[in-house]
Amino acid sequence: MMKVSVLGYGTVGSGVVEIIRENKELITKRTGEEIQVKSILDLRDFPGDPVQDIIVHDFEEIKNDSEVQIVIETMGGLHPAYEFVKASLESGKSVCTSNKALVAAYGPELLETAQDKNVNFLFEASVGGGIPIIRPLKVSLAPDEILEISGILNGTTNYILTEMTEKGADFDSVLKDAQEKGYAEKDPTADIEGHDACRKIAILTSLAYGKQLDFEDIYTEGITKITDRDINYAKKLGAKIKIFGSSRKVGDRVAAMVAPKLITSSHPLYSVDGVFNAILVKGNMVGDVMFYGQGAGKLATASAVVSDVIEETKHSNVHMKTLWEHEKLNLMPLDEVTSKFFVRVHGGREEVEKEVAAAFGKVTPVDVGYTDEFGFVTEEMTEGAYGKAADALSVINKIRFDA
Amino acid sequence: MMKVSVLGYGTVGSGVVEIIRENKELITKRTGEEIQVKSILDLRDFPGDPVQDIIVHDFEEIKNDSEVQIVIETMGGLHPAYEFVKASLESGKSVCTSNKALVAAYGPELLETAQDKNVNFLFEASVGGGIPIIRPLKVSLAPDEILEISGILNGTTNYILTEMTEKGADFDSVLKDAQEKGYAEKDPTADIEGHDACRKIAILTSLAYGKQLDFEDIYTEGITKITDRDINYAKKLGAKIKIFGSSRKVGDRVAAMVAPKLITSSHPLYSVDGVFNAILVKGNMVGDVMFYGQGAGKLATASAVVSDVIEETKHSNVHMKTLWEHEKLNLMPLDEVTSKFFVRVHGGREEVEKEVAAAFGKVTPVDVGYTDEFGFVTEEMTEGAYGKAADALSVINKIRFDA
Repeated sequence: MMKVSVLGYGTVGSGVVEIIRENKELITKRTGEEIQVKSILDLRDFPGDPVQDIIVHDFEEIKNDSEVQIVIETMGGLHPAYEFVKASLESGKSVCTSNKALVAAYGPELLETAQDKNVNFLFEASVGGGIPIIRPLKVSLAPDEILEISGILNGTTNYILTEMTEKGADFDSVLKDAQEKGYAEKDPTADIEGHDACRKIAILTSLAYGKQLDFEDIYTEGITKITDRDINYAKKLGAKIKIFGSSRKVGDRVAAMVAPKLITSSHPLYSVDGVFNAILVKGNMVGDVMFYGQGAGKLATASAVVSDVIEETKHSNVHMKTLWEHEKLNLMPLDEVTSKFFVRVHGGREEVEKEVAAAFGKVTPVDVGYTDEFGFVTEEMTEGAYGKAADALSVINKIRFDA
Repeated sequence: MMKVSVLGYGTVGSGVVEIIRENKELITKRTGEEIQVKSILDLRDFPGDPVQDIIVHDFEEIKNDSEVQIVIETMGGLHPAYEFVKASLESGKSVCTSNKALVAAYGPELLETAQDKNVNFLFEASVGGGIPIIRPLKVSLAPDEILEISGILNGTTNYILTEMTEKGADFDSVLKDAQEKGYAEKDPTADIEGHDACRKIAILTSLAYGKQLDFEDIYTEGITKITDRDINYAKKLGAKIKIFGSSRKVGDRVAAMVAPKLITSSHPLYSVDGVFNAILVKGNMVGDVMFYGQGAGKLATASAVVSDVIEETKHSNVHMKTLWEHEKLNLMPLDEVTSKFFVRVHGGREEVEKEVAAAFGKVTPVDVGYTDEFGFVTEEMTEGAYGKAADALSVINKIRFDA
């Protein structure tokens, strides 16, 4: 019997308890041992809920419970999640978490503590919800040098962009609709500004290269500037706009970014629509590998947490080394990163075409019939060169073009 | 230093050696230990090859080498692969294999031997080439009851069907082209008749339910009957023809099959074209999860083998339990399995419409302009009922319609 405690009986935490209860028989069979939720930490009581008798309000009770070998952290946020996780590891308990903020900020430290104590810090659910990606990246792709990671890592923004594309609706009304359907939070900032995707690509990139990539260092651009006009240009280009968390190896440095991109139908993630997430990983031996599924949602995310709990139960007392050092990853300055850019500038084509040519050299015009602006695609250039060229013009919006 | 031996220096075996050599530095870092290929068993010599000095011709040398802790089996075929793998496990060495025939035929027995000897029998590369699927199914999806597995599991047939669809070419000329490009074997039987996919879905289904599904018991239909006319009907239906290895849970039984199917654009595997493979797994908690990548090829497959070698090196002396018992899986008789069918019968529509209605009841005609035959889609029905209804008609071809 493996006894576990859950910190936080919210969406994911209650999902974890539900899965352990509903799939108990098969989990016991596959694990070779029964998993029992002994206690749940929450500030609230849950009268009438089957868990009402195992709710505790004081973390110390869990920390000091020597029967509890695994702590499941599903509170979210940095504090007190960090303090509770650290204390759990230090008291010799393994921790499984769904908390991307915690992992992005304290990954190497908590892995080190786990190693010191010969326990494990596992975080499959921190990226991609129910999609297996952390374990495949750590284990299945271990033979490969990772050349590139491109992820549609946030279901809310992918849903919004999909709806804008399919229904021709504007950003604000789709956001409102997404909030009503529960696909977007009341305060959607973390999603629509790319902060959520940023933490996820920071985690994946750090794991891929074994060194710390601070999420604060990653250039991050959200989707709030995308309008129906951008969508119309995208269609004209045979492209879709999707927001990517991405990183790629360039010599001995890594370029990383969160930003909307135009991709065409030859891109493996072109058909990943709605609330689904997908992550493409390119290895120097295995080539392109893609993982797809529900990037969020109570039971999908909880399933990923429980997979960690099962693995830990099967291998308790065995530390599984994860390479993610404190040393900082050698990040390429944004100015040196290259791509093509789709750009819209104020003014009709006749009016501004010469200025555009003077600033950008050769460009490919994209005409969807607007007379008050001029849209075009640049050649491949660095972000630095783009910035200088754009300075001379009155830019409405620009979107990187991955084609 | 972990010393390993490779059985068979063919395509995959030489790929394994290449990856261990080329990515040595990062593999050592991630593993925490260097992996060294100590010997390679092959009937041939390889003068001038860097491995010429470590080639051995007698398996006993490897079996009796107490320094060798992991045996990598990439010979293929059942014999002597089975005898060598069994003897390796019995002498306390873990085995990593890419051999689907071996795993499908002897999986439970070899896992049992591994358990008895406290070593491991790992076979990530046996299904899906470079796509991580065995480990995700065993570990990441362990919390879930598996409701369905649908796989495009054979790159050769997917390439042929893709070319037929995109170029309007006929089966024979595409097969010939595929053979010239090295995408199809000289003797393509195992691929085009579905035998390869059959072994793969047998392995995945056995792992999903923890019981043995004999590949001989799975209804298997290849792609040799598919013609350009079928492709034209598919296009009219907004569908593509792909050959699936699939299984799904129906009550306490499992329905399994290898057969071409018509799928429409709402199917997650619709856009998996060319030599790529993809596997969709539906869990009762996680929902749909999809894995995509190169299903074959020297380095992709070898990367999967090396991932097993790395995992085994990190956890040597720890048996990782895999649930796959000798007990037979409760397979649903084919006659009871249901689907819709797209059917073509001899004779013009006016001529045969009444007979078709008498046999099948309500059907949906599909008209692409052929006057000498009549194509239609049935309602959902059992295979048994289909067989009886079809008996009364002169059927040219039928393809299951997954929509």
